[in-house]
Amino acid sequence: MTRKVKIPVSTVGRLSIYLRVFSQVAKTQGTISSKGLAEWTGINSAQVRKDLAYFGQFGRRGVGYSIQDLKAQITSILGLDREWNAAIIGVGHLGTALLMYRGFGSRRFKVTAALDTDPDKISWELEGIRIHDLADLAAVAREKRIEIAILSVPAEAAQEVANQVVAAQIPAILNFVPVRLVVPKHVLLRDVDLAGELEALTYAMRKR
Amino acid sequence: MTRKVKIPVSTVGRLSIYLRVFSQVAKTQGTISSKGLAEWTGINSAQVRKDLAYFGQFGRRGVGYSIQDLKAQITSILGLDREWNAAIIGVGHLGTALLMYRGFGSRRFKVTAALDTDPDKISWELEGIRIHDLADLAAVAREKRIEIAILSVPAEAAQEVANQVVAAQIPAILNFVPVRLVVPKHVLLRDVDLAGELEALTYAMRKR
Repeated sequence: MTRKVKIPVSTVGRLSIYLRVFSQVAKTQGTISSKGLAEWTGINSAQVRKDLAYFGQFGRRGVGYSIQDLKAQITSILGLDREWNAAIIGVGHLGTALLMYRGFGSRRFKVTAALDTDPDKISWELEGIRIHDLADLAAVAREKRIEIAILSVPAEAAQEVANQVVAAQIPAILNFVPVRLVVPKHVLLRDVDLAGELEALTYAMRKR
Repeated sequence: MTRKVKIPVSTVGRLSIYLRVFSQVAKTQGTISSKGLAEWTGINSAQVRKDLAYFGQFGRRGVGYSIQDLKAQITSILGLDREWNAAIIGVGHLGTALLMYRGFGSRRFKVTAALDTDPDKISWELEGIRIHDLADLAAVAREKRIEIAILSVPAEAAQEVANQVVAAQIPAILNFVPVRLVVPKHVLLRDVDLAGELEALTYAMRKR
Protein backbone atom coordinates (compact mmCIF):
# COMPACT_ATOMS: atom_id res chain seq x y z
CA MET A 1 0.00 0.00 0.00
CA THR A 2 2.80 2.42 0.78
CA ARG A 3 4.87 1.33 -2.21
CA LYS A 4 6.55 4.41 -3.65
CA VAL A 5 5.51 4.99 -7.22
CA LYS A 6 7.12 7.52 -9.56
CA ILE A 7 4.38 9.44 -11.34
CA PRO A 8 4.54 12.43 -13.73
CA VAL A 9 3.52 15.76 -12.16
CA SER A 10 0.59 16.18 -14.57
CA THR A 11 -0.77 12.82 -13.41
CA VAL A 12 -0.47 13.85 -9.76
CA GLY A 13 -2.80 16.79 -10.49
CA ARG A 14 -5.36 14.44 -11.99
CA LEU A 15 -5.12 12.04 -9.03
CA SER A 16 -6.29 14.93 -6.81
CA ILE A 17 -9.26 15.36 -9.12
CA TYR A 18 -10.10 11.64 -9.09
CA LEU A 19 -9.95 11.63 -5.31
CA ARG A 20 -12.49 14.43 -5.11
CA VAL A 21 -14.82 12.56 -7.45
CA PHE A 22 -14.55 9.39 -5.34
CA SER A 23 -15.72 11.27 -2.24
CA GLN A 24 -18.86 12.27 -4.07
CA VAL A 25 -19.48 9.05 -5.98
CA ALA A 26 -18.77 6.63 -3.11
CA LYS A 27 -22.03 7.63 -1.45
CA THR A 28 -24.04 5.84 -4.14
CA GLN A 29 -21.77 3.25 -5.79
CA GLY A 30 -18.91 0.85 -5.02
CA THR A 31 -17.22 0.72 -8.41
CA ILE A 32 -16.57 3.14 -11.23
CA SER A 33 -15.64 2.59 -14.88
CA SER A 34 -12.97 4.62 -16.66
CA LYS A 35 -15.80 6.01 -18.79
CA GLY A 36 -17.71 7.02 -15.64
CA LEU A 37 -14.64 8.66 -14.13
CA ALA A 38 -14.02 10.41 -17.45
CA GLU A 39 -17.56 11.82 -17.42
CA TRP A 40 -17.25 13.07 -13.85
CA THR A 41 -13.92 14.74 -14.43
CA GLY A 42 -14.02 15.82 -18.06
CA ILE A 43 -10.73 13.95 -18.61
CA ASN A 44 -10.83 11.49 -21.51
CA SER A 45 -11.15 7.81 -20.62
CA ALA A 46 -7.92 6.71 -22.35
CA GLN A 47 -6.05 9.17 -20.11
CA VAL A 48 -7.91 7.90 -17.04
CA ARG A 49 -6.92 4.30 -17.80
CA LYS A 50 -3.32 5.36 -18.42
CA ASP A 51 -3.19 7.29 -15.12
CA LEU A 52 -4.62 4.42 -13.08
CA ALA A 53 -2.27 1.93 -14.74
CA TYR A 54 0.69 3.85 -13.23
CA PHE A 55 0.07 2.20 -9.92
CA GLY A 56 -0.99 -1.15 -11.26
CA GLN A 57 -4.73 -0.59 -11.24
CA PHE A 58 -6.58 -2.25 -14.06
CA GLY A 59 -10.33 -2.01 -14.29
CA ARG A 60 -12.26 -5.23 -14.83
CA ARG A 61 -14.35 -5.28 -17.98
CA GLY A 62 -18.00 -4.73 -17.15
CA VAL A 63 -17.19 -4.14 -13.47
CA GLY A 64 -14.77 -1.20 -13.43
CA TYR A 65 -12.52 -0.14 -10.58
CA SER A 66 -13.21 -0.57 -6.90
CA ILE A 67 -13.65 2.96 -5.56
CA GLN A 68 -12.53 2.03 -2.04
CA ASP A 69 -9.36 0.41 -3.34
CA LEU A 70 -8.51 3.27 -5.71
CA LYS A 71 -9.20 5.82 -2.98
CA ALA A 72 -6.85 4.08 -0.54
CA GLN A 73 -4.07 3.84 -3.11
CA ILE A 74 -4.32 7.42 -4.34
CA THR A 75 -4.59 8.69 -0.76
CA SER A 76 -1.35 6.90 0.05
CA ILE A 77 0.39 8.06 -3.14
CA LEU A 78 -0.48 11.68 -2.47
CA GLY A 79 0.77 11.38 1.09
CA LEU A 80 -2.70 11.96 2.49
CA ASP A 81 -2.68 8.94 4.78
CA ARG A 82 -1.54 11.32 7.50
CA GLU A 83 -2.16 14.95 8.44
CA TRP A 84 0.13 17.77 7.35
CA ASN A 85 0.54 20.89 9.44
CA ALA A 86 0.57 24.14 7.55
CA ALA A 87 1.09 27.77 8.54
CA ILE A 88 -0.31 30.74 6.67
CA ILE A 89 2.16 33.59 6.46
CA GLY A 90 0.59 36.95 5.70
CA VAL A 91 -2.94 37.46 6.99
CA GLY A 92 -4.23 39.99 4.45
CA HIS A 93 -7.31 39.30 2.36
CA LEU A 94 -5.83 36.27 0.63
CA GLY A 95 -4.35 34.87 3.85
CA THR A 96 -7.69 35.32 5.59
CA ALA A 97 -9.48 33.63 2.69
CA LEU A 98 -7.03 30.72 2.92
CA LEU A 99 -7.55 30.49 6.68
CA MET A 100 -11.27 30.22 6.10
CA TYR A 101 -11.02 27.91 3.08
CA ARG A 102 -13.01 24.80 3.83
CA GLY A 103 -11.32 22.64 1.21
CA PHE A 104 -8.12 22.11 3.22
CA GLY A 105 -9.36 20.37 6.35
CA SER A 106 -11.33 17.77 4.44
CA ARG A 107 -8.14 16.86 2.61
CA ARG A 108 -5.78 16.30 5.57
CA PHE A 109 -4.24 19.75 5.69
CA LYS A 110 -4.37 21.36 9.07
CA VAL A 111 -3.62 25.05 9.31
CA THR A 112 -2.24 25.25 12.83
CA ALA A 113 -0.73 28.71 12.81
CA ALA A 114 -0.88 32.07 11.10
CA LEU A 115 1.82 34.72 11.13
CA ASP A 116 2.00 38.40 10.29
CA THR A 117 4.13 41.45 11.04
CA ASP A 118 1.23 43.83 11.70
CA PRO A 119 0.98 44.59 15.47
CA ASP A 120 -2.79 45.12 15.04
CA LYS A 121 -3.17 41.51 13.90
CA ILE A 122 -0.67 39.73 16.14
CA SER A 123 -2.20 37.83 19.08
CA TRP A 124 -5.66 37.86 17.54
CA GLU A 125 -7.41 34.65 16.63
CA LEU A 126 -9.14 33.95 13.33
CA GLU A 127 -11.16 30.79 12.83
CA GLY A 128 -9.70 29.57 16.11
CA ILE A 129 -6.15 30.03 14.85
CA ARG A 130 -3.80 32.37 16.67
CA ILE A 131 -1.89 34.96 14.66
CA HIS A 132 1.75 35.01 15.74
CA ASP A 133 4.49 37.56 15.20
CA LEU A 134 6.45 36.60 12.09
CA ALA A 135 9.61 37.30 14.08
CA ASP A 136 8.78 34.16 16.10
CA LEU A 137 8.50 31.96 13.01
CA ALA A 138 11.26 29.51 13.95
CA ALA A 139 9.80 28.89 17.42
CA VAL A 140 6.25 28.58 16.12
CA ALA A 141 7.35 26.20 13.35
CA ARG A 142 9.11 23.98 15.90
CA GLU A 143 6.29 24.00 18.43
CA LYS A 144 3.51 23.45 15.87
CA ARG A 145 5.60 21.10 13.70
CA ILE A 146 4.90 23.14 10.57
CA GLU A 147 5.75 21.27 7.38
CA ILE A 148 4.23 23.61 4.81
CA ALA A 149 4.40 27.41 4.74
CA ILE A 150 1.63 28.99 2.71
CA LEU A 151 2.89 32.38 1.55
CA SER A 152 0.41 35.22 1.01
CA VAL A 153 2.51 38.28 1.79
CA PRO A 154 3.02 41.47 -0.27
CA ALA A 155 5.23 40.91 -3.32
CA GLU A 156 8.02 43.17 -2.05
CA ALA A 157 8.35 41.13 1.17
CA ALA A 158 8.09 37.66 -0.40
CA GLN A 159 11.77 36.77 -0.85
CA GLU A 160 12.71 38.00 2.62
CA VAL A 161 9.88 35.95 4.15
CA ALA A 162 10.90 32.92 2.08
CA ASN A 163 14.40 33.26 3.56
CA GLN A 164 12.87 33.23 7.06
CA VAL A 165 10.88 30.10 6.18
CA VAL A 166 14.06 28.38 5.03
CA ALA A 167 15.89 29.48 8.18
CA ALA A 168 13.01 28.10 10.27
CA GLN A 169 13.61 24.71 8.60
CA ILE A 170 10.12 24.42 7.15
CA PRO A 171 10.61 21.94 4.28
CA ALA A 172 7.97 23.16 1.81
CA ILE A 173 6.43 26.40 0.53
CA LEU A 174 3.17 26.95 -1.32
CA ASN A 175 3.65 30.39 -2.84
CA PHE A 176 0.65 32.54 -3.76
CA VAL A 177 2.74 35.65 -4.40
CA PRO A 178 3.32 36.43 -8.09
CA VAL A 179 7.07 36.57 -7.57
CA ARG A 180 9.76 34.08 -8.45
CA LEU A 181 11.36 32.98 -5.19
CA VAL A 182 14.86 31.63 -4.79
CA VAL A 183 15.19 28.84 -2.21
CA PRO A 184 17.78 26.11 -1.61
CA LYS A 185 17.30 22.84 -3.47
CA HIS A 186 16.22 20.92 -0.34
CA VAL A 187 13.17 23.17 0.09
CA LEU A 188 10.14 22.21 -2.00
CA LEU A 189 8.55 25.21 -3.67
CA ARG A 190 5.27 25.28 -5.54
CA ASP A 191 3.90 28.44 -7.11
CA VAL A 192 0.18 28.98 -7.43
CA ASP A 193 -0.15 31.18 -10.47
CA LEU A 194 -3.64 32.66 -10.45
CA ALA A 195 -3.15 34.52 -13.73
CA GLY A 196 -1.88 31.27 -15.24
CA GLU A 197 -5.25 29.71 -14.46
CA LEU A 198 -6.93 32.48 -16.43
CA GLU A 199 -4.51 31.93 -19.32
CA ALA A 200 -5.56 28.29 -19.59
CA LEU A 201 -9.10 29.61 -20.09
CA THR A 202 -8.22 32.26 -22.66
CA TYR A 203 -6.15 29.70 -24.58
CA ALA A 204 -9.26 27.53 -24.85
CA MET A 205 -11.50 30.51 -25.71
CA ARG A 206 -9.14 31.68 -28.41
CA LYS A 207 -9.18 28.23 -30.06
CA ARG A 208 -12.92 28.46 -30.71
CA MET B 1 1.58 34.78 -35.96
CA THR B 2 -2.04 33.99 -35.14
CA ARG B 3 -1.83 30.47 -36.53
CA LYS B 4 -3.94 28.22 -34.31
CA VAL B 5 -1.84 25.50 -32.76
CA LYS B 6 -3.21 22.52 -30.86
CA ILE B 7 -1.22 22.08 -27.66
CA PRO B 8 -1.69 19.70 -24.70
CA VAL B 9 -3.13 21.33 -21.58
CA SER B 10 -0.01 20.54 -19.53
CA THR B 11 2.09 22.43 -22.09
CA VAL B 12 -0.23 25.43 -21.92
CA GLY B 13 0.51 25.68 -18.19
CA ARG B 14 4.24 25.70 -18.88
CA LEU B 15 3.86 28.35 -21.59
CA SER B 16 2.44 30.66 -18.89
CA ILE B 17 5.54 29.98 -16.84
CA TYR B 18 7.90 30.64 -19.76
CA LEU B 19 6.12 33.91 -20.46
CA ARG B 20 6.70 35.08 -16.90
CA VAL B 21 10.39 34.22 -17.14
CA PHE B 22 10.74 36.16 -20.40
CA SER B 23 9.40 39.32 -18.74
CA GLN B 24 12.16 39.09 -16.17
CA VAL B 25 14.96 37.92 -18.45
CA ALA B 26 14.26 40.28 -21.37
CA LYS B 27 15.59 43.19 -19.31
CA THR B 28 19.13 41.87 -19.58
CA GLN B 29 19.33 39.54 -22.59
CA GLY B 30 17.89 39.06 -26.09
CA THR B 31 18.15 35.28 -26.40
CA ILE B 32 17.76 32.33 -24.07
CA SER B 33 18.91 28.70 -24.35
CA SER B 34 16.70 25.74 -23.45
CA LYS B 35 19.16 25.11 -20.63
CA GLY B 36 18.77 28.70 -19.40
CA LEU B 37 14.99 28.50 -19.56
CA ALA B 38 15.16 25.15 -17.73
CA GLU B 39 17.21 26.74 -14.94
CA TRP B 40 14.83 29.68 -14.55
CA THR B 41 11.75 27.49 -14.44
CA GLY B 42 12.89 24.26 -12.85
CA ILE B 43 11.49 22.37 -15.87
CA ASN B 44 14.00 20.03 -17.51
CA SER B 45 15.56 21.20 -20.77
CA ALA B 46 14.34 18.25 -22.88
CA GLN B 47 10.79 19.19 -21.90
CA VAL B 48 11.45 22.85 -22.68
CA ARG B 49 12.70 21.96 -26.17
CA LYS B 50 9.70 19.69 -26.75
CA ASP B 51 7.26 22.40 -25.63
CA LEU B 52 8.79 25.07 -27.85
CA ALA B 53 8.89 22.69 -30.83
CA TYR B 54 5.06 22.51 -30.69
CA PHE B 55 4.83 25.83 -32.39
CA GLY B 56 7.80 25.37 -34.66
CA GLN B 57 10.42 27.06 -32.52
CA PHE B 58 13.85 25.54 -32.71
CA GLY B 59 16.74 27.08 -30.84
CA ARG B 60 19.94 27.73 -32.74
CA ARG B 61 22.97 25.94 -31.37
CA GLY B 62 25.13 28.32 -29.42
CA VAL B 63 22.60 31.14 -29.83
CA GLY B 64 19.36 29.85 -28.32
CA TYR B 65 15.90 31.25 -28.85
CA SER B 66 14.99 34.85 -29.54
CA ILE B 67 13.10 35.99 -26.43
CA GLN B 68 11.13 38.64 -28.32
CA ASP B 69 10.01 36.13 -30.93
CA LEU B 70 9.08 33.45 -28.38
CA LYS B 71 7.23 36.00 -26.28
CA ALA B 72 5.16 37.19 -29.25
CA GLN B 73 4.27 33.64 -30.26
CA ILE B 74 3.32 32.43 -26.78
CA THR B 75 1.38 35.64 -26.13
CA SER B 76 -0.65 34.98 -29.26
CA ILE B 77 -1.12 31.26 -28.50
CA LEU B 78 -2.42 32.04 -25.01
CA GLY B 79 -4.83 34.62 -26.42
CA LEU B 80 -3.02 37.43 -24.59
CA ASP B 81 -2.65 39.64 -27.64
CA ARG B 82 -5.83 41.36 -26.47
CA GLU B 83 -7.46 42.22 -23.14
CA TRP B 84 -10.04 39.99 -21.49
CA ASN B 85 -12.75 41.43 -19.26
CA ALA B 86 -13.45 39.52 -16.09
CA ALA B 87 -15.98 39.92 -13.27
CA ILE B 88 -15.47 38.72 -9.72
CA ILE B 89 -18.60 37.20 -8.27
CA GLY B 90 -18.60 37.02 -4.49
CA VAL B 91 -16.70 39.77 -2.70
CA GLY B 92 -15.77 37.96 0.51
CA HIS B 93 -12.15 37.60 1.60
CA LEU B 94 -11.12 35.58 -1.44
CA GLY B 95 -13.03 37.83 -3.85
CA THR B 96 -11.44 40.90 -2.27
CA ALA B 97 -8.00 39.29 -2.50
CA LEU B 98 -8.62 38.53 -6.18
CA LEU B 99 -9.77 42.12 -6.79
CA MET B 100 -6.52 43.34 -5.28
CA TYR B 101 -4.34 40.72 -6.95
CA ARG B 102 -1.66 42.52 -8.93
CA GLY B 103 -0.83 39.59 -11.17
CA PHE B 104 -3.92 39.89 -13.36
CA GLY B 105 -3.55 43.35 -14.85
CA SER B 106 0.02 42.77 -15.98
CA ARG B 107 -1.21 39.73 -17.89
CA ARG B 108 -4.04 41.28 -19.92
CA PHE B 109 -6.89 40.41 -17.55
CA LYS B 110 -9.03 43.36 -16.63
CA VAL B 111 -11.43 42.97 -13.74
CA THR B 112 -14.13 45.43 -14.77
CA ALA B 113 -16.91 44.49 -12.35
CA ALA B 114 -17.59 42.82 -9.03
CA LEU B 115 -20.92 41.40 -7.91
CA ASP B 116 -22.38 40.33 -4.59
CA THR B 117 -25.78 39.81 -2.95
CA ASP B 118 -24.93 41.58 0.32
CA PRO B 119 -26.76 44.97 0.48
CA ASP B 120 -23.92 46.30 2.67
CA LYS B 121 -21.44 45.71 -0.16
CA ILE B 122 -23.53 46.64 -3.21
CA SER B 123 -22.75 50.08 -4.70
CA TRP B 124 -19.44 50.34 -2.88
CA GLU B 125 -16.20 50.57 -4.79
CA LEU B 126 -13.11 48.51 -4.12
CA GLU B 127 -9.85 49.21 -5.94
CA GLY B 128 -11.87 51.51 -8.20
CA ILE B 129 -14.24 48.70 -9.14
CA ARG B 130 -17.93 49.08 -8.42
CA ILE B 131 -19.72 46.24 -6.63
CA HIS B 132 -23.01 45.48 -8.36
CA ASP B 133 -26.06 43.57 -7.23
CA LEU B 134 -25.76 39.96 -8.43
CA ALA B 135 -29.41 40.21 -9.53
CA ASP B 136 -28.19 42.59 -12.26
CA LEU B 137 -25.58 40.14 -13.58
CA ALA B 138 -26.97 39.85 -17.11
CA ALA B 139 -27.11 43.64 -17.59
CA VAL B 140 -23.64 44.16 -16.07
CA ALA B 141 -22.18 41.36 -18.21
CA ARG B 142 -23.61 42.94 -21.35
CA GLU B 143 -22.56 46.47 -20.50
CA LYS B 144 -19.06 45.56 -19.35
CA ARG B 145 -18.59 42.84 -22.01
CA ILE B 146 -17.64 40.26 -19.38
CA GLU B 147 -16.01 37.17 -20.87
CA ILE B 148 -14.81 35.46 -17.72
CA ALA B 149 -16.67 35.05 -14.42
CA ILE B 150 -14.38 34.45 -11.46
CA LEU B 151 -16.42 32.60 -8.83
CA SER B 152 -15.60 33.10 -5.15
CA VAL B 153 -18.97 32.60 -3.50
CA PRO B 154 -19.93 30.33 -0.57
CA ALA B 155 -20.05 26.64 -1.55
CA GLU B 156 -23.80 26.33 -0.99
CA ALA B 157 -24.51 29.16 -3.45
CA ALA B 158 -22.02 28.12 -6.14
CA GLN B 159 -24.23 26.07 -8.47
CA GLU B 160 -27.05 28.62 -8.37
CA VAL B 161 -24.60 31.42 -9.19
CA ALA B 162 -23.06 29.32 -11.99
CA ASN B 163 -26.56 28.98 -13.46
CA GLN B 164 -26.92 32.77 -13.38
CA VAL B 165 -23.54 33.14 -15.11
CA VAL B 166 -24.68 30.76 -17.86
CA ALA B 167 -27.98 32.62 -18.22
CA ALA B 168 -26.04 35.88 -18.51
CA GLN B 169 -24.20 34.34 -21.48
CA ILE B 170 -20.75 34.72 -19.98
CA PRO B 171 -18.70 32.14 -21.91
CA ALA B 172 -16.15 31.10 -19.26
CA ILE B 173 -15.91 30.47 -15.51
CA LEU B 174 -12.86 30.31 -13.29
CA ASN B 175 -14.16 28.52 -10.21
CA PHE B 176 -12.45 28.95 -6.84
CA VAL B 177 -15.21 27.20 -4.90
CA PRO B 178 -14.39 23.62 -3.87
CA VAL B 179 -17.56 22.32 -5.49
CA ARG B 180 -18.08 20.47 -8.75
CA LEU B 181 -20.24 22.68 -10.94
CA VAL B 182 -22.49 21.49 -13.72
CA VAL B 183 -22.57 23.81 -16.75
CA PRO B 184 -23.56 23.32 -20.40
CA LYS B 185 -20.84 22.13 -22.76
CA HIS B 186 -20.50 25.51 -24.51
CA VAL B 187 -19.40 27.17 -21.25
CA LEU B 188 -15.71 26.80 -20.42
CA LEU B 189 -15.14 25.84 -16.80
CA ARG B 190 -11.83 25.72 -15.00
CA ASP B 191 -11.56 24.76 -11.34
CA VAL B 192 -8.80 26.17 -9.18
CA ASP B 193 -8.24 23.49 -6.60
CA LEU B 194 -6.24 25.04 -3.75
CA ALA B 195 -6.04 21.78 -1.79
CA GLY B 196 -4.85 20.08 -4.99
CA GLU B 197 -1.86 22.44 -4.99
CA LEU B 198 -1.00 21.28 -1.48
CA GLU B 199 -1.33 17.65 -2.57
CA ALA B 200 1.27 18.17 -5.29
CA LEU B 201 3.61 19.27 -2.47
CA THR B 202 2.85 16.40 -0.11
CA TYR B 203 3.29 13.93 -2.97
CA ALA B 204 6.79 15.28 -3.47
CA MET B 205 7.53 15.34 0.28
CA ARG B 206 6.38 11.78 0.71
CA LYS B 207 8.74 10.60 -2.05
CA ARG B 208 11.79 11.77 -0.08
